[in-house]
Amino acid sequence: MTSPIKSSKMVKIDKALEMLYGSIRMDILDSEILPIKSAFNRVLVCDIKAKYDLPQNNQSAVDGYAVSAIDTFNASPSNPILLRLKSKITNSDFTITSGETTYVLTGAPIPKGSDAVIMVEYTDVVQPGMIQICKSVPPGEDVSWKGEDVNQGEPILKKGMKLKPQDIGMLGALKIRSVEVFKKPKIGILSTGSELTSLDSNNQEGKIVEINSLVLAAMTIDIGAEPVLLGLVKDEYEHLREKISESLEKIDILIVTGGTSAGLFDFTVKAIDSLGDPGVIVHGVAIKPGRPTSLASIDNKPIISLSGYPVAAMIGFYVFARPLIAKMLGSTYELEPRVRARVTRRIASNVGMRSFVRVKVSDTHGKYVAEPVRTTGSGILSSMIHANGLLIIPEDIDGIDENQEVDIILFRPIQ
Amino acid sequence: MTSPIKSSKMVKIDKALEMLYGSIRMDILDSEILPIKSAFNRVLVCDIKAKYDLPQNNQSAVDGYAVSAIDTFNASPSNPILLRLKSKITNSDFTITSGETTYVLTGAPIPKGSDAVIMVEYTDVVQPGMIQICKSVPPGEDVSWKGEDVNQGEPILKKGMKLKPQDIGMLGALKIRSVEVFKKPKIGILSTGSELTSLDSNNQEGKIVEINSLVLAAMTIDIGAEPVLLGLVKDEYEHLREKISESLEKIDILIVTGGTSAGLFDFTVKAIDSLGDPGVIVHGVAIKPGRPTSLASIDNKPIISLSGYPVAAMIGFYVFARPLIAKMLGSTYELEPRVRARVTRRIASNVGMRSFVRVKVSDTHGKYVAEPVRTTGSGILSSMIHANGLLIIPEDIDGIDENQEVDIILFRPIQ
Repeated sequence: MTSPIKSSKMVKIDKALEMLYGSIRMDILDSEILPIKSAFNRVLVCDIKAKYDLPQNNQSAVDGYAVSAIDTFNASPSNPILLRLKSKITNSDFTITSGETTYVLTGAPIPKGSDAVIMVEYTDVVQPGMIQICKSVPPGEDVSWKGEDVNQGEPILKKGMKLKPQDIGMLGALKIRSVEVFKKPKIGILSTGSELTSLDSNNQEGKIVEINSLVLAAMTIDIGAEPVLLGLVKDEYEHLREKISESLEKIDILIVTGGTSAGLFDFTVKAIDSLGDPGVIVHGVAIKPGRPTSLASIDNKPIISLSGYPVAAMIGFYVFARPLIAKMLGSTYELEPRVRARVTRRIASNVGMRSFVRVKVSDTHGKYVAEPVRTTGSGILSSMIHANGLLIIPEDIDGIDENQEVDIILFRPIQ
Repeated sequence: MTSPIKSSKMVKIDKALEMLYGSIRMDILDSEILPIKSAFNRVLVCDIKAKYDLPQNNQSAVDGYAVSAIDTFNASPSNPILLRLKSKITNSDFTITSGETTYVLTGAPIPKGSDAVIMVEYTDVVQPGMIQICKSVPPGEDVSWKGEDVNQGEPILKKGMKLKPQDIGMLGALKIRSVEVFKKPKIGILSTGSELTSLDSNNQEGKIVEINSLVLAAMTIDIGAEPVLLGLVKDEYEHLREKISESLEKIDILIVTGGTSAGLFDFTVKAIDSLGDPGVIVHGVAIKPGRPTSLASIDNKPIISLSGYPVAAMIGFYVFARPLIAKMLGSTYELEPRVRARVTRRIASNVGMRSFVRVKVSDTHGKYVAEPVRTTGSGILSSMIHANGLLIIPEDIDGIDENQEVDIILFRPIQ
């Protein structure tokens, strides 16, 4: 699609993002307290310090006999030693002295006076009250020392961390049952275009089904935010303006698709700009696909207007919404899977623009090769299905040469 | 922890998985019909063929004037041409002839007789009923041809595909409102260990909080399966046996943690083996950490017994449960993010075993370096928090040399 936006007026992606970040406060997200079981993949609001040592005691790592290691120094299968069995540990002052042992279960505190545990497999009960040991162990053998995992007071999890399975486990181990996390950012998704109809509509005759809301809602869920579906509006200035205005109250970030070029009915940018300060900050970004992208902010709510073409809308979400959402959460976004691959043919791009090229990566005799998909219009959604990767060509080069090795972002496994 | 399982009896990971796969039928998952909006990340049961061409018509990619390109061949700003404006398109037989044009909106079908569209920006209404064109365009300009995205009958999505945002969009574009997907595999998680207490328990005095269920439930959710929390059982043979037996009815895959080594109270493997055929298939895997892993299958339900140590349990889930779940779904599992990094010091490993080493990857002057975390016991959960990556050392080597470049699986972003 030819765009009427002049190259000279286009803003580079990094600059555009910087301008957007500069136009809003980032600390707008509310927090909520969740049981840790429900906090997976949510982002911590505060640092978490350990209230206890982990383990809380010097404890046994196995089922066996707690000993003073020095007592075992000469023990072997041919030279077993005998230790007196003391009865079960009853309290934390329980002590053994040289020549004594006591049975401990995995995870149980070891008694004072002991510094090692002999696995039950290396012991025998040869006479009542006496345990035969046929293995020599060093101090610390099969003992987990108090605090060896976590020290009391240690800042074990940091604010801005996205809680992973091991983090949830750590909270549990520290007996923390609930945790303060940011509410999921609400991403409003508003589609425009008089040519479109909703998937749920009963009258789709001669219309194109609106799919950007489906695609962007899934992308929103994928990065841990909450989609707020705001529907489909016709390209009518007053209606669109009103809809955007009322949408802003329900969301943290608004994404509008369609109506960003300069056709007769393309009022989106104008409508946004009329709603408050600072209004539209960037109109036209040096990105391919997606030149007509505009970025705006109205009363501290960021608005990202993306092309109505689904491929351009997806890439626009990836480039603009994803880092903005991470920034609001004070979080680093996840790296995507990447592979190094050689491109099968020269791919030209425009110096000054960042290009996103859909490629199909395949494994040829153990080497990855990336074939650009042939049909590349940003309306060709199937290109995102036939491809499994995205090649980003930076602004400062005019393309990638045949056989050049590049990093590819993989969005689907290599078959 | 020292394990009593003899090296000679340990089965290599790939062989162990093969034996597990061979012991069960893989086609056991039921399917369900979901609205496409709810089908993100779910796995398709059948191929999806396009019922329509996409686009359904030759359509305009812009707001502008549909023309026969040949009429514009000499047009330029200094030599504009005039075309007669025909009124709005009323039906699919609407036709223009040479010298005529008609206004079309983005996405609207272009009339018969036209093969290009001139963006409204390059036109002018100079007199009523006449449009001035000041640009020459080739056939196809700003036209999306019928079927250029998808051809009717084309198998556009394949069974076993995990539905991505673009796939959901494609289903919508094809006017498919609901889709058949596999039910999420139910992963039962049963924890054992008399030394443990539940996070929700009111009496945690002197006990260790059971966290494997928390960690594995999150990992289960992460790969798109459904955790079924079966609770915590003491190391008592009959009780454990009964609990496993009744659990099998509620799940597709059972994961049991704890009780897999050979201490006095380690009855898990014996209990599983007693429940049916073929019973325990593998006991002892050449994996570090996680040697006491056992794999079993009872009446076509796979049972994976993992170490009670949380790090070993996590790695066991990653190595055994994840590929098994993907296999049941007929799906390829997602690649994780990986980076190439140089290790900061030699890491020894045992030939014959596959080792999973936790490392912290950092960016030093634009180069990635991987530092193995110092505290490596498989009970040291904090090692999974201080690390951000996993280095897999294959069976056929005895370690990684200092400065050697290796692939690291990243499970948290590099800071």
